[in-house]
Amino acid sequence: MAAEALREQAELVRRMKQDKAEPDMVAKEVAKLLEMKAELGGDEGKHKFVLKNPKGTRDYGPKQMAIRERVFNAIITCFKRHGAEVIDTPVFELKETLTGKYGEDSKLIYDLKDQGGELLSLRYDLTVPFARYLAMNKITNIKRYHIAKVYRRDNPAMTRGRYREFYQCDFDIAGQFDPMIPDAECLKIVHEILSDLQLGDFLIKVNDRRILDGMFAVCGVPDSKFRTICSSVDKLDKMPWEEVRSEMVGEKGLSPEAADRIGEYVQLHGGMDLIEQLLQDPKLSQNKMAKEGLEDMKLLFEYLTLFGITGKVSFDLSLARGLDYYTGVIYEAVLLQQQNNHGEESVGVGSVAGGGRYDGLVGMFDPKGRKVPCVGVSIGIERIFSILEQKLEASEEKIRTTETQVLVASAQKKLLEERLKLVSELWDAGIKAEVLYKKNPKLLNQLQYCEDTGIPLVAIVGEQELKDGVVKLRIVATREEVNIRRESLVEEIRRQTSQP
Amino acid sequence: MAAEALREQAELVRRMKQDKAEPDMVAKEVAKLLEMKAELGGDEGKHKFVLKNPKGTRDYGPKQMAIRERVFNAIITCFKRHGAEVIDTPVFELKETLTGKYGEDSKLIYDLKDQGGELLSLRYDLTVPFARYLAMNKITNIKRYHIAKVYRRDNPAMTRGRYREFYQCDFDIAGQFDPMIPDAECLKIVHEILSDLQLGDFLIKVNDRRILDGMFAVCGVPDSKFRTICSSVDKLDKMPWEEVRSEMVGEKGLSPEAADRIGEYVQLHGGMDLIEQLLQDPKLSQNKMAKEGLEDMKLLFEYLTLFGITGKVSFDLSLARGLDYYTGVIYEAVLLQQQNNHGEESVGVGSVAGGGRYDGLVGMFDPKGRKVPCVGVSIGIERIFSILEQKLEASEEKIRTTETQVLVASAQKKLLEERLKLVSELWDAGIKAEVLYKKNPKLLNQLQYCEDTGIPLVAIVGEQELKDGVVKLRIVATREEVNIRRESLVEEIRRQTSQP
Repeated sequence: MAAEALREQAELVRRMKQDKAEPDMVAKEVAKLLEMKAELGGDEGKHKFVLKNPKGTRDYGPKQMAIRERVFNAIITCFKRHGAEVIDTPVFELKETLTGKYGEDSKLIYDLKDQGGELLSLRYDLTVPFARYLAMNKITNIKRYHIAKVYRRDNPAMTRGRYREFYQCDFDIAGQFDPMIPDAECLKIVHEILSDLQLGDFLIKVNDRRILDGMFAVCGVPDSKFRTICSSVDKLDKMPWEEVRSEMVGEKGLSPEAADRIGEYVQLHGGMDLIEQLLQDPKLSQNKMAKEGLEDMKLLFEYLTLFGITGKVSFDLSLARGLDYYTGVIYEAVLLQQQNNHGEESVGVGSVAGGGRYDGLVGMFDPKGRKVPCVGVSIGIERIFSILEQKLEASEEKIRTTETQVLVASAQKKLLEERLKLVSELWDAGIKAEVLYKKNPKLLNQLQYCEDTGIPLVAIVGEQELKDGVVKLRIVATREEVNIRRESLVEEIRRQTSQP
Repeated sequence: MAAEALREQAELVRRMKQDKAEPDMVAKEVAKLLEMKAELGGDEGKHKFVLKNPKGTRDYGPKQMAIRERVFNAIITCFKRHGAEVIDTPVFELKETLTGKYGEDSKLIYDLKDQGGELLSLRYDLTVPFARYLAMNKITNIKRYHIAKVYRRDNPAMTRGRYREFYQCDFDIAGQFDPMIPDAECLKIVHEILSDLQLGDFLIKVNDRRILDGMFAVCGVPDSKFRTICSSVDKLDKMPWEEVRSEMVGEKGLSPEAADRIGEYVQLHGGMDLIEQLLQDPKLSQNKMAKEGLEDMKLLFEYLTLFGITGKVSFDLSLARGLDYYTGVIYEAVLLQQQNNHGEESVGVGSVAGGGRYDGLVGMFDPKGRKVPCVGVSIGIERIFSILEQKLEASEEKIRTTETQVLVASAQKKLLEERLKLVSELWDAGIKAEVLYKKNPKLLNQLQYCEDTGIPLVAIVGEQELKDGVVKLRIVATREEVNIRRESLVEEIRRQTSQP
């Protein structure tokens, strides 16, 4: 394959020279050719196979999987606690299904090769497949979670947990309900999960697309610039205001006065007091959309008070979020990190959850445009993995990657058959048991295997034990050994390994 | 999109006419054009969006997911009982990684579009990614399972559980061990899983590639025809011998005498007695490979006897299996179905598990060709789902799709806040609880919701209960109601919903 590409590149250079192409261009292609040659070790004929996984992806080894399962368990337990069902959809969708849903980010979608038949793309998130599923099955009412991988041809930053293939854990509530009750539950869920995972202090920022749009209107942003100015605001978590302002005025042609008015609003963050203040704001309160948004925000904070979580929720006018499909409340959870020990302000280390209300998306799929209001949250699992992986590496904690309760071992030779018979008995009784795949393993090696893998018990068979109808049970941690009658062995292993 | 395709097709027809292309061809393209027009409802401008998921794939709704989770749990429990770790790999691999591993079936691989960067393909199975993972990480010793979706552009037969996207559940043991011990454990695992799932009677057929190759040699098959004759033998589970014979002789140019000799061998199936008989076979026992295979088969059956599972294992000389990479023992489990009630022979309804030994695959990825012997088994989950889905539909059993223990309800109006407060208390105590997202739901609707979704308990708050510091707990099944002090509610819900 590489050799073939090399030949093609050489052919390209030859043709360019022949066609008298621009010397700069030719030089560039020659450089590329030399690079490819170097990669092939100068030997065109010999194929050098590259042993790697695709860019931006990773394998999960047993240790990573053990961490991953812990995180998934915490998240799934929470979703189930809130009465969610679970669904699954295919990893790819008709290309058309994804078209027109992601704005500028559409260029990051992975397409499948046209091999005849339908044109397909890998899913970019779980929200659009969910909306397609609802419309297709005419479901108007569901509370579901979905945990699966999604795909984005983005620039990977793997150490910070940004991959091209990554998990999303989504919880969504679809249906026509009284205002802000499902929305409040989504925030409660974020609060529960981030608390359970003990990732350190966090903050959930909340805003509403209607408040943003109303704010833009009263600041004098023309309707046609709402979305593009919104995407400038979205950069405020990574850029200082001055840069964002100059983007608005310079690149996007907003008047400096309008930008300055926005600048005043987006500094604001707070709780119920801020909502009340803005409801009194002479300009904002006159805007229908902003008023609706603020009144719903007030209701939301009332519910959050009942849930006892307002301490970690901040109404923040600078929160905008990128995706096009949001229509109401939006939110994003960030982890806070004490920057130093001098009590200075803590700074965000990145978003670990986000979501909002999208009342129009299902209607885009329905032949008759029937709408199904939806609100949901997506937990950004990869960044959480990265943090927990680093934490566990820093700590001394040894992670077990199996659950084996007992190793069936022997001290003497020629007891393979007896070991196999015993391990089979244990399996049939539901005991998690292993045996070394050696005819005559040394006892020391068998004990070492238990040390290495964290198996707590060893069941040792020997000539004498077989005669006496017993098995020697050894507790690895204490090296204590005791003879157990064979018929009591299962019970004793259960007793020894039951969680306290 | 469809309108665009239509325009392109019309342009094609126009050009063909202009170029005076063959009338037959033009007619074909015109027909295609008319078909596309009809699909668009005769209105070129109006886009008709097709609301469906890709061919050969399906969504899993909450009910299907409930069944799927039961099956996965049974399988994972078994894999963990045998001390397996778990890994995960990306859904796509470098195209090159899959090249040359699947023989003729390579045409079924899904490729990704070349969007710049690496050429990628969706994984076709979990075995090749596993081998790539071992070689890349220089792992020479692991027992792991991997449950994930794989992709094949095959003709789907969805009612029989054949999809283009489907799950594989793989368990493999890699490492240099004493002969046939891991191989026997794989068969024990198949036996345990199929017994646990209660799918009805089953049979595990076993053979060995070395016995097959030895048999071909002594029957007079030329070396160069081994693989192609092997793939003819592989069809014996779907075709009668006469057809397979005529394929061998007619299409593949084997001598009739050689075919007839094969015909005698492939009828044979049995247990230890057959192995002993073939070890005495004057021709077969003279062939080195066959002899090795038969001696290992004898050892395997000795171990299977210790595991107590020979009753469902049959040494079957007609078992061949399609994949190229097997090097030793191979096996396949089929479900048996009583054809009628007159005691006639039971017939297989298809393979639900298969696997074997592949000692050369990892070496194909290692730069120095270092081999890591492997043996494994793959559980064919989709067919098992289909069977269980049909079984459950036929039965009256109602499947719960949530685990909610209690619905927080109210009999009077204006108690939304009290309901939210209580449900939040329950969530914080780890109780699985729901509340209807209505300000003033009717009690009847709340009770109906419990009936519909199988929630066993209702916690009812009312003015009087609030004053008295109690909650009325209703058991949905018996309609029994009892006042519980608020501080004892969590405990009482746990007591009522704990599994007996």
